[in-house]
Amino acid sequence: DAHVHVESSMMTVGRFAGAVLPRGTTGAFIDPHEIANVHGLDGVRWMAEEARTTPMKIYVQIPSCVPAAPGLETNGATIGPEDVAEAMTWDGVIGLGEVMNYPGVAFGDEAIHARIAAALKGSGVIGGHYASDDLGAPFRAYAAGGPSDCHEGTRPEDVAARVRLGMAAIIREGTACRNVAAQARAVTEDGIDPRRVLLCTDDRHPGTLLHEGHMDDVVRKAIRAGIRPMTAIQMATLNTAEHFGVARDVGSIAPCRYADLLIVDDLEEMVVDEVIAAGEVVARGGRLIATPEPFAYPPKARASVAIPAALVPADFEVRAPDGVDAVACRVIRRIEAQVLTEQEIEIFPVESGAVVPQGDVAYLAVVERHRGTGRIGRGFVRGFGLEGRCALASTVAHDSHNLLVLGSDLDAMAAAAKRVVKIGGGIALVRDGRVIAQIDLPIAGLMSDAPVADVAARTDVLQRALGDDCGCRVSDALTALSFLALPVIPRLRLTDLGLVDVDRFEIVSLFVDDDNPLRKRER
Amino acid sequence: DAHVHVESSMMTVGRFAGAVLPRGTTGAFIDPHEIANVHGLDGVRWMAEEARTTPMKIYVQIPSCVPAAPGLETNGATIGPEDVAEAMTWDGVIGLGEVMNYPGVAFGDEAIHARIAAALKGSGVIGGHYASDDLGAPFRAYAAGGPSDCHEGTRPEDVAARVRLGMAAIIREGTACRNVAAQARAVTEDGIDPRRVLLCTDDRHPGTLLHEGHMDDVVRKAIRAGIRPMTAIQMATLNTAEHFGVARDVGSIAPCRYADLLIVDDLEEMVVDEVIAAGEVVARGGRLIATPEPFAYPPKARASVAIPAALVPADFEVRAPDGVDAVACRVIRRIEAQVLTEQEIEIFPVESGAVVPQGDVAYLAVVERHRGTGRIGRGFVRGFGLEGRCALASTVAHDSHNLLVLGSDLDAMAAAAKRVVKIGGGIALVRDGRVIAQIDLPIAGLMSDAPVADVAARTDVLQRALGDDCGCRVSDALTALSFLALPVIPRLRLTDLGLVDVDRFEIVSLFVDDDNPLRKRER
Repeated sequence: DAHVHVESSMMTVGRFAGAVLPRGTTGAFIDPHEIANVHGLDGVRWMAEEARTTPMKIYVQIPSCVPAAPGLETNGATIGPEDVAEAMTWDGVIGLGEVMNYPGVAFGDEAIHARIAAALKGSGVIGGHYASDDLGAPFRAYAAGGPSDCHEGTRPEDVAARVRLGMAAIIREGTACRNVAAQARAVTEDGIDPRRVLLCTDDRHPGTLLHEGHMDDVVRKAIRAGIRPMTAIQMATLNTAEHFGVARDVGSIAPCRYADLLIVDDLEEMVVDEVIAAGEVVARGGRLIATPEPFAYPPKARASVAIPAALVPADFEVRAPDGVDAVACRVIRRIEAQVLTEQEIEIFPVESGAVVPQGDVAYLAVVERHRGTGRIGRGFVRGFGLEGRCALASTVAHDSHNLLVLGSDLDAMAAAAKRVVKIGGGIALVRDGRVIAQIDLPIAGLMSDAPVADVAARTDVLQRALGDDCGCRVSDALTALSFLALPVIPRLRLTDLGLVDVDRFEIVSLFVDDDNPLRKRER
Repeated sequence: DAHVHVESSMMTVGRFAGAVLPRGTTGAFIDPHEIANVHGLDGVRWMAEEARTTPMKIYVQIPSCVPAAPGLETNGATIGPEDVAEAMTWDGVIGLGEVMNYPGVAFGDEAIHARIAAALKGSGVIGGHYASDDLGAPFRAYAAGGPSDCHEGTRPEDVAARVRLGMAAIIREGTACRNVAAQARAVTEDGIDPRRVLLCTDDRHPGTLLHEGHMDDVVRKAIRAGIRPMTAIQMATLNTAEHFGVARDVGSIAPCRYADLLIVDDLEEMVVDEVIAAGEVVARGGRLIATPEPFAYPPKARASVAIPAALVPADFEVRAPDGVDAVACRVIRRIEAQVLTEQEIEIFPVESGAVVPQGDVAYLAVVERHRGTGRIGRGFVRGFGLEGRCALASTVAHDSHNLLVLGSDLDAMAAAAKRVVKIGGGIALVRDGRVIAQIDLPIAGLMSDAPVADVAARTDVLQRALGDDCGCRVSDALTALSFLALPVIPRLRLTDLGLVDVDRFEIVSLFVDDDNPLRKRER
């Protein structure tokens, strides 16, 4: 797997390995971007250390954009150039993780270039993330700035553009983003030499891993899209190893390499029967032969929810400006099956000084959980369809992973938030005062140390309860929720510092009238 | 050029660059194995420093086998594991040069493995040199030991075997070894994926560079052998850059790379019109635009011939055992167009205690020139066809590069040797007491700092004089001579320590009877 965030599986590296090894994934390039936003370089080191306890060959990319949006959110740590330089000296660290700040690279932002320079100095490979359709000058400038791969393309022309700029084009097939079918055409129709085409999952949820698979599934999809089996396999082996400069160790069957071998029943269907990692049979018939000892994360890793006072319903109430009985609010509007959000203006009544959302608009709150400030950002979101008195609280909230609480009811929000605080991080769903589903994520509030089947089952239960008991018909509501706090994707987001207008890249008031300086003074 | 010994051009790196840049070679991986045998790590460093003064991208491979045959010859220096570790920290040093001791790698010789380990620790690429037709277990063991490329193949199956073992197959087209036509068939007929097929010259003499060209000629030959032009060009660009891990800098036209570009009139004929190196036009129409300042080699580099006393004819005389009037001698027999030699036994008369060779057998002597020992190894060689009183002396004598003297006459030998000592290294041809041709190689006794046309002209004059005035009809007699002292290629060689039986890997007496212990005691 040429690029994956293990945290998206909601499992520790060891449990992730336990889930993907039976699928035939013997190596991965992981970018621990999520834990880094909680625990900084410590988190990266723990995952790198845990990685070495698995039978997989796991190479670590140092997260490049921690925090993602300085000044617009509060996260747990900063990874600066000196941290990058230090991590480059660790075993198994291969370079820099996806450089998401592509305008920063193209237009010469010193902070991001300093991180790139530190990684290059340590002979690192710079991972890319160019999330724009503009394949012209800005992309060339981005490529010139250091990143040498990119997994953000969606079209065949994105593959061609990356390869022509000397990059590796990494085609992604994750839980949400499924780009293989469309991008395979670069090879099958446009004649692009596949030697620099790679495959990755980027983000796969536990249910996807359990029911669809991992790289076996990606390779299968590539073959179904018309790529020759041997070429698809090379994309997931040799090409990836060469790109990251580790072809001496992995990616081909030859003397001096680790014996990472799959016995495959059907090459086109990529049904993996037996998995040999570093010369040992580790899985057979889709089952692990032996479950390794769990890695001992330090207590600090499990103490990541620092919220000083007990949360109460009033903490989630939105207080209106004095003396108004209605107020025009900025509301985040979710768009089905997209990460993008829109902004809309709604006028809500005010009761006893509190704004009361109407219709399919829910309360949304972000409680800062890293530094014990007690700070809470408050707002509204349309589109989750919550019915009755319910709330969903989660410490999985990209990228700063504060405690995000969505609810139709203030009491339910407090109850859900309190449960998540109590279990030291995770996800809780409350209906009518009772926790009806819960996913414990004790490691950094992001990862479970339970096996994939357990995590997938709990996720499934929660998703079903969300629909059946709370009326939420959003496909993959957990993912949709987790992106509401990410202040780098347009247009309107909520962080602990307040509402972020991503187009303007600044904090804006929840109340539209606050924009009017005359009205502001008047209050 | 994926592997080249600049010393074989008999020019300094700057002059070599001046010769090959107009031919379109903008980058090379050089293995300064010859100077290393004279000046050790200092020589490697000088060449690495000189390389940086040229417009070429020259990457240096640290010579791995210095000396080539410890105990069987005296060379100028040893490059040990600690030297390798040090050189790996220098700018432009890319790894280890061809590991020629292939039995040592396969069978676990600690000295060679320590050098390999030191280079790998510095993230170096290990150059290979597997000069055997056995593609079975020994070759697999060799590949497992570290070397990741090889340019010693001659057959299509050698290309396939290398690629299948995860190595790069480097196809060589030098002055003597011309392997492109035969090996291209691996790609054109056997369907080997060319991504790990590279091209090199290894050794090209000044006349070849001047009259045939350099990598332009190799690529042209590959195209004539049926390889598609774009594939042949990739072999000499992208494939090579990727193999050595420098594809971020060279080997493709993309942002962030050096602008090393050729304007080519005819792609199939590879006629290079304009050469751009690092964004500057450096050659046009086959001519350099500007000749760079010559690199200032330190005085030590020019003081490499340390022979304490003036050489006299008696130094080259072979004294027979006491009281015999004839003696059975081991004679080196040259084989036309081969580096291999045979051993033959000849009985020669003894006059005034000195052995007098008969027929087409010449005197051969190796004068130690590195440590001032005054030691001289003496022997006989058949097959150079010298007529009249002539001698050829040269400090180009693989691999230890002592002063090698071939002659039909003792006075001529002394005169030729004295001239070479006087000019501080080079090659001199004497006939009837007069030096009739001479090539000055003041740098390490191996390289000239004159332009390619001058060096080629002087070489041409000498070769012609050797034929016309001295009766020597050997094609490329200088090369044939230079290998007579190389004690790692079967079967019989001469070093300063005496005759070497390469099959037994030991010094043997010139006189066959010395093998008989009874006879030995008797004397």
